[in-house]
Amino acid sequence: MSAIRHALTIKREDDFAQWYQEVISEAEMAEESGVRGCMVIKPWGYGIWERIQRLMDDRIKAAGVQNCYFPLFIPLSYFAKEAEHVEGFAKEMAVVTHHRLIGDGQGGLVPDPEARLEEPLIVRPTSETVIGAAMARWVQSWRDLPLLTNQWANVVRWEMRTRMFLRTSEFLWQEGHTAHANREDALEETLRALEMYRDFVETELAMPVITGEKPENERFPGAVATYSIEAMMQDGKALQAGTSHYLGTGFAHAAGIQYQDAEGTQQYCHTTSWGTSTRMVGGMIMTHGDDDGLRVPPAVAPHQIVILPMLREKPEDEELLAYCEDLRKELAGRSALGERVRVLLDKRPGKATQKRWAWVKKGVPLILEIGGRDAAGGQVSMLRRDKLWNDAAKANFIGMPKDEFVAMAGAELENIQSALFVEAKAKRDAQLTRVSSFAEVEAFFAEDKRYPGWVEAEWVRPTGNELESVVQKLKALKLTIRNTPLDAEPVAGECIFTGRPAVERIYIARAY
Amino acid sequence: MSAIRHALTIKREDDFAQWYQEVISEAEMAEESGVRGCMVIKPWGYGIWERIQRLMDDRIKAAGVQNCYFPLFIPLSYFAKEAEHVEGFAKEMAVVTHHRLIGDGQGGLVPDPEARLEEPLIVRPTSETVIGAAMARWVQSWRDLPLLTNQWANVVRWEMRTRMFLRTSEFLWQEGHTAHANREDALEETLRALEMYRDFVETELAMPVITGEKPENERFPGAVATYSIEAMMQDGKALQAGTSHYLGTGFAHAAGIQYQDAEGTQQYCHTTSWGTSTRMVGGMIMTHGDDDGLRVPPAVAPHQIVILPMLREKPEDEELLAYCEDLRKELAGRSALGERVRVLLDKRPGKATQKRWAWVKKGVPLILEIGGRDAAGGQVSMLRRDKLWNDAAKANFIGMPKDEFVAMAGAELENIQSALFVEAKAKRDAQLTRVSSFAEVEAFFAEDKRYPGWVEAEWVRPTGNELESVVQKLKALKLTIRNTPLDAEPVAGECIFTGRPAVERIYIARAY
Repeated sequence: MSAIRHALTIKREDDFAQWYQEVISEAEMAEESGVRGCMVIKPWGYGIWERIQRLMDDRIKAAGVQNCYFPLFIPLSYFAKEAEHVEGFAKEMAVVTHHRLIGDGQGGLVPDPEARLEEPLIVRPTSETVIGAAMARWVQSWRDLPLLTNQWANVVRWEMRTRMFLRTSEFLWQEGHTAHANREDALEETLRALEMYRDFVETELAMPVITGEKPENERFPGAVATYSIEAMMQDGKALQAGTSHYLGTGFAHAAGIQYQDAEGTQQYCHTTSWGTSTRMVGGMIMTHGDDDGLRVPPAVAPHQIVILPMLREKPEDEELLAYCEDLRKELAGRSALGERVRVLLDKRPGKATQKRWAWVKKGVPLILEIGGRDAAGGQVSMLRRDKLWNDAAKANFIGMPKDEFVAMAGAELENIQSALFVEAKAKRDAQLTRVSSFAEVEAFFAEDKRYPGWVEAEWVRPTGNELESVVQKLKALKLTIRNTPLDAEPVAGECIFTGRPAVERIYIARAY
Repeated sequence: MSAIRHALTIKREDDFAQWYQEVISEAEMAEESGVRGCMVIKPWGYGIWERIQRLMDDRIKAAGVQNCYFPLFIPLSYFAKEAEHVEGFAKEMAVVTHHRLIGDGQGGLVPDPEARLEEPLIVRPTSETVIGAAMARWVQSWRDLPLLTNQWANVVRWEMRTRMFLRTSEFLWQEGHTAHANREDALEETLRALEMYRDFVETELAMPVITGEKPENERFPGAVATYSIEAMMQDGKALQAGTSHYLGTGFAHAAGIQYQDAEGTQQYCHTTSWGTSTRMVGGMIMTHGDDDGLRVPPAVAPHQIVILPMLREKPEDEELLAYCEDLRKELAGRSALGERVRVLLDKRPGKATQKRWAWVKKGVPLILEIGGRDAAGGQVSMLRRDKLWNDAAKANFIGMPKDEFVAMAGAELENIQSALFVEAKAKRDAQLTRVSSFAEVEAFFAEDKRYPGWVEAEWVRPTGNELESVVQKLKALKLTIRNTPLDAEPVAGECIFTGRPAVERIYIARAY
C-alpha cells in the first residue's frame, strides 16, 4: 500500500465535499470500484457496517420481526402492477434482458440473441412488489396478522451522480415489510419502526435526528405517508438517514394481499415498509469526522481500543509485546456498552507515528502507545480520539498506571459515546434557526454563510397546485422541506407561504 | 396459513426427491418465488442460514481474513480477461443491458432503447475478476501479502433445472479471495480453508464429509487445483458442500496482481478462492431429516428448545403461562455449545398437537409440553427430536422435575449435536464400498439398489484423452469421481481403469 500521509490535506471549512472523500480514502473505508456508480467497501468501512447490522438486527428481532430473503430479480409484470410506484422508480433501474453470452467472432463476448428473456427482469430497487406477492400467499386470515418481515439485501437504483456511501447505484440495506388488519395497526408499526431508527441512530451512531413526516412531494412512490429521521451534517446540510412508510391498501390491492376478518369478510391488508442503508455510514462520517479524519462512536467501532507497541526491532521487543498482550487480554475481558471490549494489538512492523496516524484517521476511540519505559513501569499512554487532536501537542497523550486504565476503559468508552452525541447535538442545535416569514428564509440562505444550517418555520400543509408552487419557490434556493417534526411544540404563528394561521412546524434545509 | 398436516405424506425410501420438497414446505423453510429459479427463504430457513453465517464468519475472522463488499455487477471487459474462466461460466449468466424502462404506449413497460448500456454488465456468478481488479490496486509490495478477504453476497448462475437450496439461479454464499507471494503459501491457504470447512460442517452441521482434490475435469474454471468437501446424503448421493481453489497465477496475470519482492523484482501473486453457500442447508436437510420432517443440529437451530403450554383458554392458563415463562428464563440463562441456550415460549393459540407437529417438522431439538398438572407438580414433559418419533407412542415424551431438566438442558443439547453426527457417520460409512475393478463398479451401481452409496477405488490420474474416456465411461452410469481423499490410507492395488499400479484412492458416486 502507498505510504500513509499523517494529517488530512483538506479541512472541513475549506471544502466539505473534498474533505469527505479524503476521510473515506485515508481511513481506508471504501473506494471507487471501476464499475459505474458502485463502490468497494474495504475492511474498515465494512467492519463498521457489520456493527451497524448486528445492533440494528437485534432491535428488529426484539420487535418480533422475522428475517427472510426474497429474489434479487423482479419480473417486469410484478413491477407494472403498482402504477404510482413504477412511476417513481421507472427512470433508474437495471434491466436484465439476456441469460447468456456468446462469442462475437472477434475474440469478444456479446449477449446471445438466442437467449433473450421473454420478460425482462428488474434488479430490485426496493422489494414491495415481490414481497407483496409472497404476502398474498402467506396471509389468509386475521390470525396471520400482523405479518412482520425484514430482509438484509443489496438493491440497485441507477443514479446519475454518485457519492460514496451517500448515493451509489448499488447499496446495502435492510427493508422491513409488514401487513396489518387495519390503518391503526399499520400506522402504529410505521411509527414504531421510525422510533426504532431514532433510538438506533442516536444511541449507536451518536447522531441526533429529528423524526417527522415528509411533505407530500417527498413521499415514497405509492405511499400514503412517509416519515423520516433527518440528521444535520457539519456543513449544515440535511441527511435523510432512514424512512418508514405507511402504504395504505395500495400495494395490497396490486398484489392481492387479503385476509378474512373475524366475521368472515374478505379485507385488504394495510402494509408498511421501512429501510435504512449504508448511507448511515456516510452520515456518521459527516457528523463526527474532524480535520484529522474519522471519529467512530465506540458502539460501532470494529476495534474500540488499539494497542500500539513502540517496537524497535531489538530483543527488548519481546518483553514489550508480552506486556501488551497481557494488557490486550485484560481489556478483552472488560465490558462497555453492554458487550465485551473490542481491542486490537497492532504488532505489524512500521514506524510508530505512521501507525498512530493511520488509526487516528480511522477514528479508533482509544489509542494506547506503549514504549519500553511504559512496560517497565506498568504504565500506559492513552489518546482519546474524540478530543481535539493536534500533531504538535504530544500533551494529548495521558499517562497512567495500566491497572487504572484497565479499570476505567469501559467507562471511558461509554463517556466517548455520550460525548460524541452531546457534541453533535450542540452543533446541530446551534444551527437551527427559527424564522417567521419566507423573506427571512430567503435572507437566511442568501447570506454568504457557507454552512448555514436549517430553518424552522410554521405552515399550513398546502394542497394541489399550492404545493407545487411552494416546492418551486424552495427549489430556486436549492432548498427542500425535510419533515414536519412529530414532537414539535405547539405552533402560534402564521404559515410562511400563505400567511394563514399555521398548523404545523417544518424544517427547511439544503440536503444530500 | 393453511392447516398444518401432522405427519409427512412421503417417506424417504419411497421418493427421496419428493420427500425433500415436502420437508422444506412443511418445515416452512422456503418456497418458489414466482421468479424463475429463485426461491423465497422463509423465517425458519433463513434463521438457520443466519446461524450458519455467524458460526462460519467467526471462523473466517479468527483466521485473520477481513470482510469486504464488492460490486454486484461485473463489466463484460473484466470478465473477458480470463479466457478459461469465462468459458466455464459464459453459458449461464444474467446480463444487464439497459438502465431505464419506458412506456410501450399500451400501458406496459419496455427497456428504453435510448438507455442501452455501452458495455453490458454481468450479474456476478462469482467475483474473482472484480476482486482481482481490487487486489491489483491493493497489493504493491511483499509487505502487503498475504491479502486475505472474504465477502458474504448473493450470486447468480442461470440454471436450467433448479432445486431449492441445492441449485437455484440466485443463491447466498461467502467467497474468500486471497493473494500470496508464492505457490506454497497459496496452497497452504487453500487447504486451510478446506479444513475450516470440514471442521465447520462436521462440528456445526453434524455432517460428516470427505476432504479431497477434485479430478481435473471438475476443476473450477481457471483453477490449477480444486478441493472439496463431499457429504453423503441419505439416498446415497454425494453433495459437494464447499470448495477451495488454488488458482495459480492465472487470475493474477489477467488482473495484473503484482508485488515487488524483497529483492525489488516484480512478481505475480498466487491467488486462491473458496466458497460455501445456502446449498449447505440442503445438505443438512438430506443428512438429518427423517420421515417426520427436519432435524436441526442444535448448533444451528434458531430455537434449540420450544416450550409449548397446553393452553385451554381458561383462567388457569395464566398460572400455566407464568410457570412456562419462569422455565423460559431459567433455560435462557444456561449455556450449551459455548453460547446461551436459545429458547422460545410458543404462546400462540391453537391446538396443542398441531403446534407440536409444526415444531417436530421444523426439527427443533427439544420440545417441552407443559400442562396444568406439570405446572402444579413442578414437572416438564420433554421430547428429544433426534430420537425416532412415532405418533402413536406418546411414550417418547419423558417426564421429569423442572429443576432436573434445567440443569441437564445444556448437556442434552450437546448430546443431540454429537448423536446426529454419530448417526450420520455410521450411515455414511455403511454405504462406502471398496471395489477393485471397473466391473465391480458397474455391478455395484447396476444392481437394483435404490440408494447404493459410493464406491472407493484406486487409480492412476489419467491425462489428456484418457481422462475424457474415463469421464464418459462413468457418465454412462450417471457417475462422477467425487474427489481423491487427502487422508486416505496408502494404496496397494491396481488402477480400476488401466490396471496399472494405483497411486491414489478415489470416491465414485451419483451426485447432486
